[in-house]
Amino acid sequence: MGSTAGIIIIGDEILSGRTKDINVNWIANELNNIGINLKEARIIQDEKKVIINTVLEFSKKFTYVFTSGGIGPTHDDMTTESISEAFGFELEKNEIAMDLLRKHYEKSKIDFNESRQKMAIIPKGASLIDNPVSVAPGFNIKNVYVFAGVPKIMQSMFHSISSELKGGVITKSKTITCNIGEGKIAYDLGQIEKQFLNMKIGSYPYFNPQSFGTSIVIRSVKEEDIDLALEKLIKIIEKFGGEFEIKK
Amino acid sequence: MGSTAGIIIIGDEILSGRTKDINVNWIANELNNIGINLKEARIIQDEKKVIINTVLEFSKKFTYVFTSGGIGPTHDDMTTESISEAFGFELEKNEIAMDLLRKHYEKSKIDFNESRQKMAIIPKGASLIDNPVSVAPGFNIKNVYVFAGVPKIMQSMFHSISSELKGGVITKSKTITCNIGEGKIAYDLGQIEKQFLNMKIGSYPYFNPQSFGTSIVIRSVKEEDIDLALEKLIKIIEKFGGEFEIKK
Repeated sequence: MGSTAGIIIIGDEILSGRTKDINVNWIANELNNIGINLKEARIIQDEKKVIINTVLEFSKKFTYVFTSGGIGPTHDDMTTESISEAFGFELEKNEIAMDLLRKHYEKSKIDFNESRQKMAIIPKGASLIDNPVSVAPGFNIKNVYVFAGVPKIMQSMFHSISSELKGGVITKSKTITCNIGEGKIAYDLGQIEKQFLNMKIGSYPYFNPQSFGTSIVIRSVKEEDIDLALEKLIKIIEKFGGEFEIKK
Repeated sequence: MGSTAGIIIIGDEILSGRTKDINVNWIANELNNIGINLKEARIIQDEKKVIINTVLEFSKKFTYVFTSGGIGPTHDDMTTESISEAFGFELEKNEIAMDLLRKHYEKSKIDFNESRQKMAIIPKGASLIDNPVSVAPGFNIKNVYVFAGVPKIMQSMFHSISSELKGGVITKSKTITCNIGEGKIAYDLGQIEKQFLNMKIGSYPYFNPQSFGTSIVIRSVKEEDIDLALEKLIKIIEKFGGEFEIKK
């Protein structure tokens, strides 16, 4: 089996509806591209006990864990503290992070006060994750990668570490969209899926004022299996007099 | 304490990155408006064991559980089966649902085949949830509300049942945005929060090519506390020579 992953989004602002999360979808696509199987994503509160339990559970269950949010300078940022407690690592002012931040704030003529120094507090023994956007680093401890919540910063951090990740065999997919309701082809879809090993056929109905139909996504690590399934599917669609379009 | 809630989004297509989830944010806002505290949201695979465990855990932990996805006619729709198994309720062809669907398909001159009849299979004893968009109902069993995944259908189902939900005291919030970096006011924010009971002050930095600053969200059930905190906050912002804007 290939590598698996879990995502933990930490932030009350997502659960209150104030902020729309866009990090799950972005990371999901990146992982999919390098053949890592995203198994679960959770959005949790800024609460120490919840963060600790979720991180420990995910760290045991998945090859990689990515967290996003809660590593800024304010009182509601408690991810770093929670993760150090989860794994029993002491917190320390990381010298490299202190240097990076000191230089950054000197250059910007901004006071490097106690709150900002909080962003240099990192569990002892963790490795830092580069932040090309706003300097304050993320960190990696065991199989857990701790990113900022701001999407641009999170994305830059992910790209800083993505070459370390061991991807698996890459799942390929083809999508065929047809003007036939999913209820009509439901039986045949299930039958086709059964004929191949480790194939997943997903069926997604669409509706719009002009028309309705189904998008069918065929996923497998074997491209030749996808093409064989596609042929069978096209025959079914033609049997029902439907039209279709194939996307890679 | 008021009512709490958990959301379970069921669907491989979200975890593969193919589809962006928009249901969490929509439900989060609805719950926030009626004073129900959303505690956690999970995005999980179309896998029976995972669905069963998550639904049972959430059903115990929260006042209300909302699931979305996996109740359509195809082989990859396994939410209904999983939930009936989780609670030990038998599955049956629900007569009301069969009637609704039969009439719907007759009117549309579409064959009401075995796959489509699958959408009338509901755990015995569950109550149906109206689907004004595409007829096939959701259902409610214990404290779990089972919705479709397509956003418009999910939204119509939520509105069909929302009058049943017992909201709590409504948390109010005010947002103040200022042109001061969050690191500068971080210490004071924490100090202000401490002075009030059950107040949450969230701090969200923003950056754009023209400027940077912080949006501060003050949340409490007591509007007068919010206003008092706001006054203190404005003094801090003015102390640092900043400008601000208040949103409700």
